[in-house]
Amino acid sequence: MSHPTDTLFLSAGAMAQLVQRHGLSATIAGIAERIAADYRRWADFDTSARVACHARQGVVELMPIADAAQFSFKYVNGHPGNPRLGLPTVMAFGVLADMTTGTPRLLAELTLTTAIRTAATSALVARHLARPGSRVMALIGNGAQAEFQAIAMRDLVGVTTLRLFDTDPRATAKLVANLTGSGLVLQVCTSTAEAVQGADIVTTVTADKTNATILTPGLVQPGMHINAVGGDCPGKTELHPGVLQAASVFVEYAPQSRIEGDVQQMPADFPVTELWQLLTGAHPGRRSATEVTVFDSVGFALEDFAALHHVHALALALGIGERIALVPHLADPKNLFGLLGAVQAPVPQAA
Amino acid sequence: MSHPTDTLFLSAGAMAQLVQRHGLSATIAGIAERIAADYRRWADFDTSARVACHARQGVVELMPIADAAQFSFKYVNGHPGNPRLGLPTVMAFGVLADMTTGTPRLLAELTLTTAIRTAATSALVARHLARPGSRVMALIGNGAQAEFQAIAMRDLVGVTTLRLFDTDPRATAKLVANLTGSGLVLQVCTSTAEAVQGADIVTTVTADKTNATILTPGLVQPGMHINAVGGDCPGKTELHPGVLQAASVFVEYAPQSRIEGDVQQMPADFPVTELWQLLTGAHPGRRSATEVTVFDSVGFALEDFAALHHVHALALALGIGERIALVPHLADPKNLFGLLGAVQAPVPQAA
Repeated sequence: MSHPTDTLFLSAGAMAQLVQRHGLSATIAGIAERIAADYRRWADFDTSARVACHARQGVVELMPIADAAQFSFKYVNGHPGNPRLGLPTVMAFGVLADMTTGTPRLLAELTLTTAIRTAATSALVARHLARPGSRVMALIGNGAQAEFQAIAMRDLVGVTTLRLFDTDPRATAKLVANLTGSGLVLQVCTSTAEAVQGADIVTTVTADKTNATILTPGLVQPGMHINAVGGDCPGKTELHPGVLQAASVFVEYAPQSRIEGDVQQMPADFPVTELWQLLTGAHPGRRSATEVTVFDSVGFALEDFAALHHVHALALALGIGERIALVPHLADPKNLFGLLGAVQAPVPQAA
Repeated sequence: MSHPTDTLFLSAGAMAQLVQRHGLSATIAGIAERIAADYRRWADFDTSARVACHARQGVVELMPIADAAQFSFKYVNGHPGNPRLGLPTVMAFGVLADMTTGTPRLLAELTLTTAIRTAATSALVARHLARPGSRVMALIGNGAQAEFQAIAMRDLVGVTTLRLFDTDPRATAKLVANLTGSGLVLQVCTSTAEAVQGADIVTTVTADKTNATILTPGLVQPGMHINAVGGDCPGKTELHPGVLQAASVFVEYAPQSRIEGDVQQMPADFPVTELWQLLTGAHPGRRSATEVTVFDSVGFALEDFAALHHVHALALALGIGERIALVPHLADPKNLFGLLGAVQAPVPQAA
């Protein structure tokens, strides 16, 4: 029995089941398509930079966005020391709600979904920016998000070969084990410099909360597309400023990326192109076979909005998830007090 | 079997059960105490104005706050037309999370809890600002939050008599029915002007999303304390500017109140005092028996932070609520992909 204010809940287990039943490749493709469609109607959205609270150990963020019909937000943390405590670096969940009534429609885990939507966005952008025929990708940082980047680039871009490096060889070993059977050729490297040799695409997805310099200008070859995913909060970058200086740089939402992305290192007027410009064709994308392109990915609320919509539709189609009462069932909406049942007995007067 | 990343979930039903078992008066008192304690350590908090998305029908807001140890946020809407659709005007839920790891600890309904924490804050402030011996309160707006205001003022301030008015007589009838047995003397009035006659405290808790003028200067008597709860977003006010001009005005958090509160009508340098100044004693509060004081309440994230802490402790003590997996259970926190089980089969290359 469903009540009009009940919310569909997709737990972490339910979401894993949903992705398994629908298939990871189909889920990535569906979310990528929805993300592209939503970026193309950019003017429909009420956008704002996410709200971040910083602690010594990491950051907690809220990422709201709305169009006229629906509102979504994501809660997401980033705590690089978490794996040492047995916890994921990134944990996330989110909600989709009606803007016309405020009713929350979907509460969903977004830890798995964030990895999927981030990879879908990366692949969507690489499709527009990587040289045609790109087959070799360096994958620097082989942690929780790495396999998703690999599968999305395989499916949507046609990558066939991965050159892998992580400062933690166990992360690379885990990735190799997970991707065995994926059809991807896996080349384990012992340094970033080795991994980027011959790469058409370089994906950096490292987690240190520092101004790391994963890629320096000397490592960048003409025509490379750089998919920089790991630099995503103030004081957390992956690219040497010289790499950005020599490239055409694409971002999701400039006001947020200038705070959080690798472009935080650059002057406020450093030129960047927003994804909606690329995806609507307002910007032509790659202009030559030697141009270096950078997608300075930080993750934007619109991608979660799109992902929440897509998994909501899938959950309803597949009958996955359960109804929960985040909101009280009120026979008379003005009678909230009636929830408490009995009349409250008087108490002795305060002094 | 609880997992370290599991979250305690208090549904709307569980919260009603919690309040019933602990008692509404005890819950209000406990939350008021925690709110006061948290306002007194104001400098510990990372504060920001809430993030609002506006639609024609209403508003959806996120209200984050954090100290070094914990983060909380509330989702809350305000849609004045909802009761015509059988839905509550205000629906809310929130989360309490560890700042040190980002783990969400508590997901709780906050529709009922918002009414309780708002009333607790109003009563806490009235205790400091209303004249000693205040016994008569006008209650203008008899909707979902009205009974909670009444009980909190009875318990924490010593109010004995309510003078009631609402443009919808059914709302007043509902309130009278709910408060029968409360020990409060209930006087039903036919206008705001009639209701405020002889009142020591005037509480306005109306819901129209307009610049309404519930209270004009001619209705205000020397020494009144005005508890203005309903004006809480841009374009939604209850007090004539002349009422504010002639009063000492107290707000929760000036940067937010100047956008959302009744003081949105006043110049940017209109003097206001923040609650932490009142509750720490940095501001003396009421200075004479004839001074008019206004609490321009809009609701601040700190009050939800305090309420979430209090209900979390009560839920653990009473064994109420259930564990949910908002976050995946990962044997290896870097192996998110492992959630999906089987190796992903290769798919035909993209074009």
